[in-house]
Amino acid sequence: MAGYNVIVVGASGAVGQEILQVLEERNFPVGELKLCATARSAGKEMLFKGKTYIVEETTPESFDGMEIALFAGGAASTEFGPLAAEKGVVVIDNSSHFRLDPQVPLVVPEVNPEDVKAHKGIIANPNCSTIIMVVPLKAIYDAAGIKRVVVSTYQAVSGAGAEGIAELTEHTRAALDGGEVVPSKFQYQIAFNLIPHIDVFQEMDYTKEEWKMVKETRKILHDDNMAITATTVRVPVYRSHSESINIETVRKVTANEAKKILEDFPGVIVQDSPADKVYPMPLYTSGNDEVFVGRIREDNSLDKGLNMWVVADQLRKGAATNAVQIAELVIKYGCLLKK
Amino acid sequence: MAGYNVIVVGASGAVGQEILQVLEERNFPVGELKLCATARSAGKEMLFKGKTYIVEETTPESFDGMEIALFAGGAASTEFGPLAAEKGVVVIDNSSHFRLDPQVPLVVPEVNPEDVKAHKGIIANPNCSTIIMVVPLKAIYDAAGIKRVVVSTYQAVSGAGAEGIAELTEHTRAALDGGEVVPSKFQYQIAFNLIPHIDVFQEMDYTKEEWKMVKETRKILHDDNMAITATTVRVPVYRSHSESINIETVRKVTANEAKKILEDFPGVIVQDSPADKVYPMPLYTSGNDEVFVGRIREDNSLDKGLNMWVVADQLRKGAATNAVQIAELVIKYGCLLKK
Repeated sequence: MAGYNVIVVGASGAVGQEILQVLEERNFPVGELKLCATARSAGKEMLFKGKTYIVEETTPESFDGMEIALFAGGAASTEFGPLAAEKGVVVIDNSSHFRLDPQVPLVVPEVNPEDVKAHKGIIANPNCSTIIMVVPLKAIYDAAGIKRVVVSTYQAVSGAGAEGIAELTEHTRAALDGGEVVPSKFQYQIAFNLIPHIDVFQEMDYTKEEWKMVKETRKILHDDNMAITATTVRVPVYRSHSESINIETVRKVTANEAKKILEDFPGVIVQDSPADKVYPMPLYTSGNDEVFVGRIREDNSLDKGLNMWVVADQLRKGAATNAVQIAELVIKYGCLLKK
Repeated sequence: MAGYNVIVVGASGAVGQEILQVLEERNFPVGELKLCATARSAGKEMLFKGKTYIVEETTPESFDGMEIALFAGGAASTEFGPLAAEKGVVVIDNSSHFRLDPQVPLVVPEVNPEDVKAHKGIIANPNCSTIIMVVPLKAIYDAAGIKRVVVSTYQAVSGAGAEGIAELTEHTRAALDGGEVVPSKFQYQIAFNLIPHIDVFQEMDYTKEEWKMVKETRKILHDDNMAITATTVRVPVYRSHSESINIETVRKVTANEAKKILEDFPGVIVQDSPADKVYPMPLYTSGNDEVFVGRIREDNSLDKGLNMWVVADQLRKGAATNAVQIAELVIKYGCLLKK
């Protein structure tokens, strides 16, 4: 099988490393591989399928001869994304910059794969918390309709990158051993604490993270008026985001029916056997590509409603895996820019 | 001022120690003080107002000559509570055993103080998560009515007592240093993890903790049909429970009006200035008696709704402080059993 020329931009960061890992695990048909990042990371060595690659500084020329560009996120997306698309490279972008652009498909492969076909060079990867929520939501949406969603998140520190991971360890050691806690990546000490503040505050005193969950979900489900409200909270967990999701449905769904619907949906693993202490937890979902759903209950406060507890590795399904799945769709649908 | 003879049962545990502290801080009119616990803790020395007391094993005779008994919770409540009341001692009980008994008032002093007057010897202290939620709920309930509540909790390990605290430290050190993690008090490793399982599973696959939040809130607000649904989760935080609360109101309330209503309510401190990174966090509320409310927002998904983020020290307001406040009401209303 002939491979495709792939460039990973931001390869050395937390998401970039996962992208490489996922490309290898899924045996993505890679032809030429180019790893790029900022000047600071240039020169770093990374392994892919046993071969060593040197990270280069991203320049406009980096995209010459490439077919698919996976952007891990950050400022590089705005600087190089449109330019790469102009050069005929299909850009799959993990930054928030293009997500709500009507010209740019926002895709979760289990939910709206066909949207990929409409791309004009750039396809956006949704926010991690949005991806994790929208997979099980879509299952219920198709089966029973959704009137309203109330979600509260419990988000891991790796959502803030490698520095977030390091800071949780630093703060934890300092808190245990009596050292000084110096917040840098987070607003306050994150060890043994909760911070209800992710990204910047915007209209109505919601954070940008909360608005992402509202607006991106509407776009992915093609339902501009869907009622969703969110509260997002950083928790002292290294990896995998968790979400407590309350869903008001159009048609009544029993807990057993909901479990069946979710079990049958691609990309979902139901872990729900309370008597056996089986429910999803972030410590045990990390490293996996699926969205884990448990604590599935009829909402006792409504005629037609469900509660569920949803956990997934936000660096995998919430970022890298979803991006590579989009690249696979681009190939499957034959919608590369260079034929 | 003459003091009242007070016995604290379970004095040496996490809640018992707080009760002593709160009695001292609030300058509760203590006459004779007796500290009791199980045989295992008998002989332990504890300080109250600079004087050393020896913890005794609880026996039926422990209650002779006493006027107020503060039970920290656990099996002692069922074993000695009714007996103490028969002996003319007003029992303020922190266990879950009597809370839903129609003969037993369930009291949060800021919410339903008058209910104390109907006691027949036992007054129940509500579940910690319930107390923390019902204080701000009552403010909104009185001002605008409440149709429905969706709550997700983030509960500290000290809700599981001193052993919970020790286990978080043990698990954290083991996780950081590569040692073996042995869950004992909790179902799984709690360090860097979340466990959506507090207390036992009951009907509809809700936990007992979740049902407590539903049923106790209805009883305290005297609203048997109030629509409430809860998801309760243990988080790696030492102290202070946090709750993401979504409220559907009867009358529309703006965020600014809600802030004013909450600021004016006794026992509530509003911490809500997002631009200044001001919102409640468990690390900073611990040791306080008030319920802290922030992230107060109109619910963008409803015409009439609010989101808020509520944090309080569950060993203080969620247990010890609330119990001592009830004892103060018993004195204020003159409803001791011995006149």
